[in-house]
Amino acid sequence: MENVEIQTYLASLGERAAAAKTVLQSLDSEQKNRALRRAAEALIERTDRLILANELDYEKAQNAGMTEGLLDRLRLTPERIKAMSEGLVQIAKLPDPVGEVMEQFDRPNGLHIEKVRVPMGVIGIIYEARPNVTADAFGLCFKTGNAVILKGGRDAFYSNQAVTEVIRDALTEMNIPADAVLLIENNDRVVTTAFMKLKEYVDLLIPRGGAGLIRSVVENSTIPVIETGTGNCHIFIDETADPAKIIPIVINAKTQRIGVCNACESLLVHKKIADRILPALGKALLEKQVEIRGDAVVQEQIPEAHAASEEDYGREYLDLILSVKTVDSLEEAIAHINKYNTGHSDAILTENPENAKEFLRRVDSACVYVNASTRFTDGFEFGFGAEIGISTQKLHARGPMGLKELTSYKYQITGQGQIRP
Amino acid sequence: MENVEIQTYLASLGERAAAAKTVLQSLDSEQKNRALRRAAEALIERTDRLILANELDYEKAQNAGMTEGLLDRLRLTPERIKAMSEGLVQIAKLPDPVGEVMEQFDRPNGLHIEKVRVPMGVIGIIYEARPNVTADAFGLCFKTGNAVILKGGRDAFYSNQAVTEVIRDALTEMNIPADAVLLIENNDRVVTTAFMKLKEYVDLLIPRGGAGLIRSVVENSTIPVIETGTGNCHIFIDETADPAKIIPIVINAKTQRIGVCNACESLLVHKKIADRILPALGKALLEKQVEIRGDAVVQEQIPEAHAASEEDYGREYLDLILSVKTVDSLEEAIAHINKYNTGHSDAILTENPENAKEFLRRVDSACVYVNASTRFTDGFEFGFGAEIGISTQKLHARGPMGLKELTSYKYQITGQGQIRP
Repeated sequence: MENVEIQTYLASLGERAAAAKTVLQSLDSEQKNRALRRAAEALIERTDRLILANELDYEKAQNAGMTEGLLDRLRLTPERIKAMSEGLVQIAKLPDPVGEVMEQFDRPNGLHIEKVRVPMGVIGIIYEARPNVTADAFGLCFKTGNAVILKGGRDAFYSNQAVTEVIRDALTEMNIPADAVLLIENNDRVVTTAFMKLKEYVDLLIPRGGAGLIRSVVENSTIPVIETGTGNCHIFIDETADPAKIIPIVINAKTQRIGVCNACESLLVHKKIADRILPALGKALLEKQVEIRGDAVVQEQIPEAHAASEEDYGREYLDLILSVKTVDSLEEAIAHINKYNTGHSDAILTENPENAKEFLRRVDSACVYVNASTRFTDGFEFGFGAEIGISTQKLHARGPMGLKELTSYKYQITGQGQIRP
Repeated sequence: MENVEIQTYLASLGERAAAAKTVLQSLDSEQKNRALRRAAEALIERTDRLILANELDYEKAQNAGMTEGLLDRLRLTPERIKAMSEGLVQIAKLPDPVGEVMEQFDRPNGLHIEKVRVPMGVIGIIYEARPNVTADAFGLCFKTGNAVILKGGRDAFYSNQAVTEVIRDALTEMNIPADAVLLIENNDRVVTTAFMKLKEYVDLLIPRGGAGLIRSVVENSTIPVIETGTGNCHIFIDETADPAKIIPIVINAKTQRIGVCNACESLLVHKKIADRILPALGKALLEKQVEIRGDAVVQEQIPEAHAASEEDYGREYLDLILSVKTVDSLEEAIAHINKYNTGHSDAILTENPENAKEFLRRVDSACVYVNASTRFTDGFEFGFGAEIGISTQKLHARGPMGLKELTSYKYQITGQGQIRP
């Protein structure tokens, strides 16, 4: 498309979203919940349509040589469609944050000020070839009264189109503007980049995907962005760590699921307990097929360990690899973590309450743990019910983002003729 | 400077700020308040030094033909230095938001989760040639445990250098790292643009100034930005408005201070009361030297009114000019406002509670008023004590930003060996 065409196309989507958001802001919770449940039913009813569209994507991706892992994320099955549908039903059950009076106070001049939670307006989501995100992102944005403009990965194009169509039809049935969810149906990269600058229409842009996607959005967007989901997560084994907790927590954080942002990527071990801990821990990790990359002390205690390079400490492997480094002190551990982490999740294993406190206070991450696996950084695990992502930035939202984090607020001020002296 | 030199220079500032922030995060409120009071005293003690530096800037600006209005903002006098100093004393008196436990809850698996308010880390402020902002921005950032990197307008260079030096010396006296406040001492525009991309070190960037500065920051920054301070504020006079309130509120909102973001720039009048209201209102505005730009109905009722163009409705005049438009309904007024406003402050004058409610709910602005002047959108007027600006975006902060808005939060999670099943 020519530049002018791109602008016209995106502006027309923006106008449609703007018209829809005005209606969405006026819906009450029950209207929204009914529509979510109807969309959930429609996904089940039209499973065949979804599977057919997904097969188009899948075959194309397979022929293009997509890796097994990515093909698996792309695949829709009746079970996965059921899970998508249930996701919407769950969102319908969550409390609606919109309209909550967060604070209210009276000023000496008689002005009454209420701080009220409101929808953002229009949210943009840019994500990779995972069709389930389409329904999920719609559900969370819709429940919070926001219109959403989606740009999914090109490899899931037909699947996303089908999911969006099913949801839009369900909304129309419920007399709600279908434009509550809009899909950018052009996979040209320049369209995606132009979308990141659609500031006049979009209030918030959330990239969901790998580090490359997120970097591209941060560098190009003029819309406020929330960065999500890159996690170089650490566990520090303090000299007072309870040996009975160490292996279960490290194995859980590293291997329970390797491709996720809250998996442990780097281990720090206090030198004073390295010889007591590392041999058994190394054995347990090796049994789970984890490749260990360590410093000299680690290699001495675990002969199978490879040498870690400086670069290893900054890596989010998302794989069965773990960097392991020994440190002389809590101080050194904290400094190392604050240098290499991505602000996601970091843990200390310790039986010393002072060290725990120091670690909690000084490690600069969204979630800081004492004696628990980093794998708990998750909207469901926190009891938020659903999440749009894990924010690794400090503005607006940090850590698991639930429904509240998809809202803004406004001040409503009522007077009786007050003027400023 | 060469590109490499710029990067080295900014990275060195970033490293210094990072080192300082670690100390600042550990200070208790009393330590911070003592340092603020000492800095306040030092500004008074070294008034002569500040005045001398300011004279250098002032003369240079005067010779370069700076306008009276800008020269006035640049000028430091003993009274203004006293006001800067008092500003810091006031900030010392405000409650410290850092460390507040915002929420805490226990999960069924025994994990205890606390959401704790923490400093952002390093804040960048880019502003125009107003030396008082230097002390003010330092005070607000310091109180909230943040290091701050300042880039002030080039025309206030010597003044900013002097203010920063006095504050840094005061911090050193109090055994607090002087690098809590750093000034970018290079006025090359490419340095400022490179600063907007110093994402590795800066957590939040706040532009304070006119629309051009803000646009440049939004377009270039890779650091999360809070947009502040552009206000195309509206007042809608509903058909049920109390005639006794109309003139005082409109005159106050338009003329009490014309160069500020919460001044009224555009008036909407319900057609049903246009003939009853406009002649007297027009007279009152003209007496205050306000130029009126209106539609045909307005020109009929106020013969002195000029014709308004479409462009007028989108203007933030910051001047003795007011656009006036008549509308057929509340609906039309809300649609017009949501089309042209900047998300700052808009008011309705009405005695109809239903219309008031509708307006409060549907106008998409940080602050929405019923029967009061838009001039109240201000941190002091809201009782927040001090403000870094008025946010016109929806992410993180909206409306007057006090101390809380300069903080983030983290989750601190304490377990007893929990792993994810």
